[in-house]
Amino acid sequence: MRVLEPERILRLEDDGVVLLDQRLLPDEEAELVCRSAGEVAGAIRELAVRGAPAIGIAAAYGYALAASRGEDLDEAFAVLQSARPTAANLGWALREVQAAADPAARARELHAEEVERCRRMSTHAARLIEPGARALTHCNTGGLATGGQGTALGALTEAWSQGLLRHVFVDETRPLLQGSRLTAWELEAAGVPHTVVADAAAGSLLAGGEVECVLVGADRIAANGDTANKIGTYPLSVLAGRHGVPFYVVAPTSTVDLATPSGAEIPIEERDPREVTPRFPARNPAFDVTPAELITAIVTELGVHRAPYAESLSGAVAA
Amino acid sequence: MRVLEPERILRLEDDGVVLLDQRLLPDEEAELVCRSAGEVAGAIRELAVRGAPAIGIAAAYGYALAASRGEDLDEAFAVLQSARPTAANLGWALREVQAAADPAARARELHAEEVERCRRMSTHAARLIEPGARALTHCNTGGLATGGQGTALGALTEAWSQGLLRHVFVDETRPLLQGSRLTAWELEAAGVPHTVVADAAAGSLLAGGEVECVLVGADRIAANGDTANKIGTYPLSVLAGRHGVPFYVVAPTSTVDLATPSGAEIPIEERDPREVTPRFPARNPAFDVTPAELITAIVTELGVHRAPYAESLSGAVAA
Repeated sequence: MRVLEPERILRLEDDGVVLLDQRLLPDEEAELVCRSAGEVAGAIRELAVRGAPAIGIAAAYGYALAASRGEDLDEAFAVLQSARPTAANLGWALREVQAAADPAARARELHAEEVERCRRMSTHAARLIEPGARALTHCNTGGLATGGQGTALGALTEAWSQGLLRHVFVDETRPLLQGSRLTAWELEAAGVPHTVVADAAAGSLLAGGEVECVLVGADRIAANGDTANKIGTYPLSVLAGRHGVPFYVVAPTSTVDLATPSGAEIPIEERDPREVTPRFPARNPAFDVTPAELITAIVTELGVHRAPYAESLSGAVAA
Repeated sequence: MRVLEPERILRLEDDGVVLLDQRLLPDEEAELVCRSAGEVAGAIRELAVRGAPAIGIAAAYGYALAASRGEDLDEAFAVLQSARPTAANLGWALREVQAAADPAARARELHAEEVERCRRMSTHAARLIEPGARALTHCNTGGLATGGQGTALGALTEAWSQGLLRHVFVDETRPLLQGSRLTAWELEAAGVPHTVVADAAAGSLLAGGEVECVLVGADRIAANGDTANKIGTYPLSVLAGRHGVPFYVVAPTSTVDLATPSGAEIPIEERDPREVTPRFPARNPAFDVTPAELITAIVTELGVHRAPYAESLSGAVAA
């Protein structure tokens, strides 16, 4: 099983933040060097780096770069904070480096902590997977999305290495195809058997009894357990519920936002409609909200949290 | 409101069947001339013409062409019949021209009858639309799919011309984008306000209360009302049900197959996985089955059929 090294996904160097440019995968593995906080914010906005945990680390590196170059740090914070609105990790990571005496050391430490959180949550979540299960996942929640081994996808590769998992179905995840471009690429590298399907085909896989569990990541988890994740997650949760298939959210505690009471208060990013079609009027919400009632369990690095999430999350995250 | 003339979509000429090549839309409006039943079957298989009613007419024209050219008619029947497996109209239309003394005259008559069926079912279905409603539709069920004014999309343009409809949301309909290529093109021509969304975004539109009705077509309707339609229709029906939004199937009686007891017996076409992604293993079921319990009503040219469909359909179709 090939592992995607954390520093290959993103790292801080003396003169820039270096990112594996995810817009070019799987065709090309090229690095993008960002030489200012503004360039890092641009890379986040344009999805050269994406995935809530990876966005947090990239922003932390961008802030540390600005500090080392003597940029205006309030401005660096603001431009990075506003790069994308939905991921909770972005603001969290920025506040961490802002409060640190040595931003570069703290940013690298955050990255190392994320790697360790991924390892722990993958271990916890893999225990939920029944031997021989076929899993379905959406978007990309692997190394590329986290800078570590991944959240939902980390759990799946962990379960595969333990001999628990039989197969992974991958939603292609329109409009930007993070599933068929990035998740399939990571699963191929890890040697995990996988099949890409159109997002609209997940329903008949579930109806046909071909899927034993659904695992997804999260961009923000509200205090009551409502979860914002890539557009298409909510329909999957409804279909999983209808067919009695467990639906797990795997995400670090940095994704949990206790200051947001419920999904109704989570800001949903509307991206450029031309990502859907350049030819006709379109709308392009990047995320949707899955209500807590449809989530079988939320797995963080601290363990498996069950409903009522208002209690299980606040107890764990505040602790 | 611009109308797509029936003979512009497809027609029988002395030396060939002429089709508006739907693979090139919306970028190019080009005609494809098929000079044998085999070429018509190829055009059906490769989706130069698609949509269950249009497939039936194209096959009838292909059979008539074979008859006029002195081709082996058993072979012509077989090659046309096997072009695609799910649409019920294909076999029905072929049996009609096979039994006719003058296949060309009967094929043109079938086309004219389809135009009239579209007009009737659109009128019946438009009555179900509440004034000011915003509708959601999937795939393409307009003139291109029928050779007439359409089924579900015919009802929507009819409702618009009556001042009933406010807006149409169009699922892009992966993998072949019949929604963002064909339906948006027809709605633009008809002057109906529309917005294309990724298939996975329909769930949050429904959850957000932005859709008052869902209208779709059908490729085959079983005797009990279970309906095969473009992949992604089943998830829409589940989401519409969850949010209390009526879900209507609009299709001619030629789509109703009383010989198929339920959805479990409908053959589902698996298309080339490279339509989903050429780079990784993939699966590409072209259709799914919506159970009758999730369908608010089925509208045919004969009127509005309600559950229990075993009675309402067999009574109407046998009559």
